[in-house]
Formats: sequence, C-alpha cells, structure tokens
Amino acid sequence: MIKEISGGVCAARGFQAAGVHCGVKADSSPEKNDLALILSERECAAAGVYTLNRVKAAPIYVTMDHLENGVAWGIVANSGNANACCPMSHENAEAMCLFAAQATGREAEDFIVASTGVIGQTINIQAIQTGLPKAAAALSRDGSDAAAKAIMTTDTVKKEIAVSFTVGGKEARLGAVAKGSGMIHPNMGTMLAFLTTDCAITQDMLEDALREVTAKTFNRVTVDGDTSTNDTAVVLANGMAGNGLIEWKDEDYETFKSALDYVCRRLSRAIAGDGEGASKLVTCKMTGARSEESAERLAKAVVASALVKAAMFGADANWGRVLCAMGYSKAPFRPEHVDISFESEAGSILVCRQGDGLAFDEDKAKEVLSQTEVVIAVNLNEGEDEAECWGCDLTYEYVKINGDYRT
Amino acid sequence: MIKEISGGVCAARGFQAAGVHCGVKADSSPEKNDLALILSERECAAAGVYTLNRVKAAPIYVTMDHLENGVAWGIVANSGNANACCPMSHENAEAMCLFAAQATGREAEDFIVASTGVIGQTINIQAIQTGLPKAAAALSRDGSDAAAKAIMTTDTVKKEIAVSFTVGGKEARLGAVAKGSGMIHPNMGTMLAFLTTDCAITQDMLEDALREVTAKTFNRVTVDGDTSTNDTAVVLANGMAGNGLIEWKDEDYETFKSALDYVCRRLSRAIAGDGEGASKLVTCKMTGARSEESAERLAKAVVASALVKAAMFGADANWGRVLCAMGYSKAPFRPEHVDISFESEAGSILVCRQGDGLAFDEDKAKEVLSQTEVVIAVNLNEGEDEAECWGCDLTYEYVKINGDYRT
Repeated sequence: MIKEISGGVCAARGFQAAGVHCGVKADSSPEKNDLALILSERECAAAGVYTLNRVKAAPIYVTMDHLENGVAWGIVANSGNANACCPMSHENAEAMCLFAAQATGREAEDFIVASTGVIGQTINIQAIQTGLPKAAAALSRDGSDAAAKAIMTTDTVKKEIAVSFTVGGKEARLGAVAKGSGMIHPNMGTMLAFLTTDCAITQDMLEDALREVTAKTFNRVTVDGDTSTNDTAVVLANGMAGNGLIEWKDEDYETFKSALDYVCRRLSRAIAGDGEGASKLVTCKMTGARSEESAERLAKAVVASALVKAAMFGADANWGRVLCAMGYSKAPFRPEHVDISFESEAGSILVCRQGDGLAFDEDKAKEVLSQTEVVIAVNLNEGEDEAECWGCDLTYEYVKINGDYRT
Repeated sequence: MIKEISGGVCAARGFQAAGVHCGVKADSSPEKNDLALILSERECAAAGVYTLNRVKAAPIYVTMDHLENGVAWGIVANSGNANACCPMSHENAEAMCLFAAQATGREAEDFIVASTGVIGQTINIQAIQTGLPKAAAALSRDGSDAAAKAIMTTDTVKKEIAVSFTVGGKEARLGAVAKGSGMIHPNMGTMLAFLTTDCAITQDMLEDALREVTAKTFNRVTVDGDTSTNDTAVVLANGMAGNGLIEWKDEDYETFKSALDYVCRRLSRAIAGDGEGASKLVTCKMTGARSEESAERLAKAVVASALVKAAMFGADANWGRVLCAMGYSKAPFRPEHVDISFESEAGSILVCRQGDGLAFDEDKAKEVLSQTEVVIAVNLNEGEDEAECWGCDLTYEYVKINGDYRT
C-alpha cells in the first residue's frame, strides 16, 4: 500500500533540506532561491543515473567520482548556471562540495553535486561560497519546499512528492524534489531529481531499482527532444526506517521498487505537464504491441513529434500526424492494424480504425483535446505489450522562452 | 561548367508542364493551383527515391509499381490532400494515373503519381478527373511556373530551378520543381521534387546518381524532424540532348551528377529557408571531422534541435545548445577540441574555442544572427572530413501554422 504524505525530500526520517538565494541567478530578485542543500543525519547508500549526452557537465563527473564508494551524506545543487563547458567547471563543481562540507562539518566526498541553467558561462562560485553557510544554517525538516524552489529554472510549478509504504513490517518513506521544463528528453539519466528514503537497502539493490524505474519513468518523458548535459537522478537511502536490510530481489525489493516507481512516475508526469511553455500534459498510451520496447519507441515518437505537439496545442484531432510519427520511429508495426483514439476527462473519440480514418464529430474532438490532460491512445492490435510516454504541447510560449533564454 | 537557366522543369528539351485549379483544395480560391502535370514527348529513363517512413502514402506504392520497368513519360501530382490512410487511397492513386493517361493518350503505367497535404481524408477524385483534361490542354513549354505553384501547400515561395551543362560535347539541361515547408526531415527520400533532363543516361546510372546526390542534399535538410509519409524525388531523362548515352561511372556520369547535385542542393536550401514559419535559413557546417558520416550526424542534430532553432529565431548566440545537440547526436567527437563560430553576411564571431566559452561582443553576435541566412560553423579539429546540413528557425508562426493546419 503506497500512500502519499507531505514533507517532500524531508519526509524520510533523518533528512533535512534548505533552499536559499545566493546570487548565481544574478539579476533575479532576492526571493528567488538558487541554492539547495539536502543532508542526512546518517551515511546513506546512494545511486545515480546520468545523461548519456557525450557533453556532460562537470558536476556529473564529480558526482560519479564521489559515488564510487556507493555512499553519500548529502546533495548540493544550484540553478541559474549549468556549470558546463567553462575552463573552471570541474574545479568549481569540486569547490561546491568542499564549501558544503565545510558548512556542515563533513567531507567534500560525502556530497553529490548538481547544476542546472545556462551552458558555457562561468558560475559565480563566490556567491555559492557565501551562500552555503546560510543554507546549512537553514537546514530543517521543513526545508523541502525551499529546496524544490531552489532548483527551478523555467519551471512554473515545483515538483515535490513523498510516499509511505510498508516494507519488512516497518513503515518506510520515500520523498523527492525534481526540476524539468526545457532540454528535456532524458536518456538513461534525466533532468534533476533528488530522492531520499529511510528504507534500509544495499547500494547494489538501490542502484538496480533506480535503473529499472528510470527506464520506465523519466526516460519516457520528452519536452523538446533535446537531451541535456546535466540530467541527474540520485537516490539516498539512510536505513532509518528500521526494516530488515534489502539485499536481494525479494518481495521487499519489489515493494521498494513499487514506491520508487510511484514517485518517479508522478515526477515524470509533472515534468512533462510543466514542460517549457506547455498548456497541457500529453500522454501516449501504446497498447497491443508485440514488445514493450517497440511500444515505448512508438509512443515516444508520437509525444516527441513537433507536428503532433502543435496539433495538441491547437486541439486539432490531426491523427494522421500520430500515424506518421509512428511510421518514422523505426519500430515495427502494421499501419493497417492501428486504431487511434483521443481521450480526456471530456470523453473519448475514435478517429482511426485499422489504419483508415473514420468520420467523427469535430466539435466533440475539439472538446476532448481542449483539456489540460489529454491521452493519445493507440492500439496496435498485434500483441499484449504496452508502454506509456509523456510530453506536452508546442506553444508560442515555448518559442518565446527559448528565443531569448540566455540574455 | 554549370550555368543557371530559366524554364524550370520544362528547361530540358521535350518536356511540357501545366498547373491548374481543380478543387482538391476545396475552399481555396480558384486561382490556387492544386493539380500539376508534367509530360515528356519521348519515353524517359526514370528513377525515384521515397520516404523511409513505415507509413507510406498510396501514391508512393503506385509509383514504385509503375517504375518497376525503369521508364516513364510523365508525372501527375496534387496538393491539398496526401491521399494516405484512407480506404480508397490506392484505388484513387491508380485512378489519377489513368485519368492522366486518358487526357494525354498514354497508358496509366507511364505515369508517376504524387500527393501532398492532409493525411487521412479521402481525396476528391472527381475534381482530379475533371481537372486532368484541363491540365492536359494547358501543357506547354512555359508551364513550369504553374506546375511549381500547383504542388505548394504551406510553402511561401515556389521552388524551381534549371541548369545547362556540357556532357559528351553536347549541351544538356536539367530542371526541377519541388515543394517543402512542413513535415520535413527526409530520410533517403524527400519532400516532393520532380526533376527532368534531356541528358541521355541509362536508368541504372540515373538511379545511382539520384541516390548519391539525395544522400548529400535532400537528406541533409530538416524543418521539424518529422519524416513525411509522402516524400518523393523523381528524375526523368529523355535523352534529347543527343549526348552519348551515359552507361558507366565515367567522366560524363560525374558531369551529370555535378549538375544534379547543384540543382538538388539549391532546392534543399530553398526548402530549408522556406520551412514552415521560418524567418531564416540556418546552415550548420561541420568541419575537421574524422568521417563525413559523423560530420553529417552532428550537423543534422544541431539544425534539428528545437532549442538551437528557437535561439536562432531570437538571434541569441546560445552556443551551449549547439554543443549539447552534438553531444546527444550519438556521433563520436571530443567536446574539448570543438570551436564554434556564428557567421553571416554581417560577419563572423568565434564564441567557443576548444570546448570552452569565450567572452564575445553580444551586440555583434546579435547582428550576425539577425540576418536571413546564418551559418553555425563548427570545427571538430580532429580530421579532414566535413558535411553541411540545412534547417530553419523555430518561430511563433510555425506553432500557428501547425496548431490548426487541418481544420
């Protein structure tokens, strides 16, 4: 039984967080947080997944280095600058960990570091140095909200969630904060997502669970097809729930994985629905497939298509673009078997059966597609497998945000 | 020596063309052409390349069937409807060839057929039946302009070009009309391009030349990353230039291929620059590569990136997005070797050297990027190979056009 609870990234026992304004976002108002700190009171098993972009931001290399021993105590992260592709990027990422360690009485290697923002501009490391003692002083069990806000860039809503679940007879908790918005097309890693749990689990099992869940959640989100240089999802587990240590892929492991899947799925949908400029969350449900892999590939091509996304913005039931996107996805399927419906809380409308267009009520279709959550439901009628991918519509606002993001 | 001449698709000896309004575009004004006819007075060697989209429009299957014998006499094409994914698509594509044959005294199998427009709506075949005798009556040596206009959908300028060149001591000509605009991300085939030549060349050599040239021209264009269901490029060669038949990959073959490359490159740039909603042509020149294949993959990722395209719209020198797009292209390169410049007729500005950002004059960069043709020049500093790809910026207008294209 997975139950949503409050507390976000501090919901799990032994975790504190803070978010402050330090000045990395130079010209923003002082109330805009740009520095987040998350700390456990005990050592945590830790696992991360990262972008597969060949150009990786320096914080990713530093984090991979610090996680080589499989343990961590906390996370330091900033928004407003990606700390990528600058002469001092690596040194500055190391410095962030060092300053976090000095402010909290720990070692630099105990910290995971992440950055998000503009690529190619030198980060204001002095601001971070000044900010970290402030952040350390602000650490509290109520700090999730401030931390979630401190990693936002063009996000319009903060992404925060926590759940409780029972594992090995004990109540355990899992919470998270995340950011998404633009340059979102994760590939094995993802945007930024920081997850904390008090569940007792080995590093090996934690890493496996994160990889398995990421493949079916974060990696099924696309906002604009651009895989970022900074995508990072990390999970810290401090064991304070007191359950028997999860060491094998037993029932407890499955329970933990279910909770992790629940949290990551919710964050994925939140990231897609709050994509840059988005006016709606677009889900593509691909069913009746011969394999989950091909279902995923087909669904992802649909939600990634600029033409499908623009049609969703216009609430235009242009299903031909859906079939067209499936056609170039490189996944095998028989166009002449395909059924396509559009669905939302305003109802459901079948527009294509066995690959041919149907006459349908255009007004009804417009109403279905004018909701803030719409589903493109495709049945391949060829097998039992399925997959769901999430995206958003392509709007004037996306162009506006990205036509002048840097300056 | 390749020289541009007038006459478009009728520049080569023995070709006539016409474009008329027949009513496939139902609610458009009578002056909007929607039916094109191109006819040779002699039998032509003919070759085509087509979309690799798994969902292919019916006209493509009919054309492949009619070209099995390697010869054709003419082309019939409509805009306003893709004739794809409808119960009668195949029969209607066959009917278009039959009506063209009846109107010109030829056989249905002598015709190549193509359609472009909305997917999934039944084409008005009666309008085409009524229109074809009108088109046949209008066939003339001056008909290229009307035919070019008849295949336009959201194109804002017609694409038409012709060249003359000397082969085997004879003056030969090659002309073309094409359409582009949206759903443009060709893959082995391309949008619609109809090419005619009076050069004497075997079908084998013609097909090889078309494939080789398409790979380096049409297949290096992207407008929105959506590979269409209808992409088709065909070339007809009627031999009336009187040159010795090109049967081998000799000097004459190379001469013909150069002319074909010239024409296809010009059309490719025209299609990219007139992409849906585009305000500028964006070229990515990738040099210093270890292979042409990786240079092409890198350049294509850059011009296809929604974030790069939006930055080009905003004349924002956000080179981090260029490096980021290269990073997820799956082509090998060393980020720390990369130099990036922006270039246009307003000048050139180096913004990244050896993978790190440089301080640069923002006003100058804005001026460089505010021109109607801009070049993103990337030097990988690793080898001698290079490739050039073409795209356009992402604008409000693209979203507007595609938010409500169908209705």
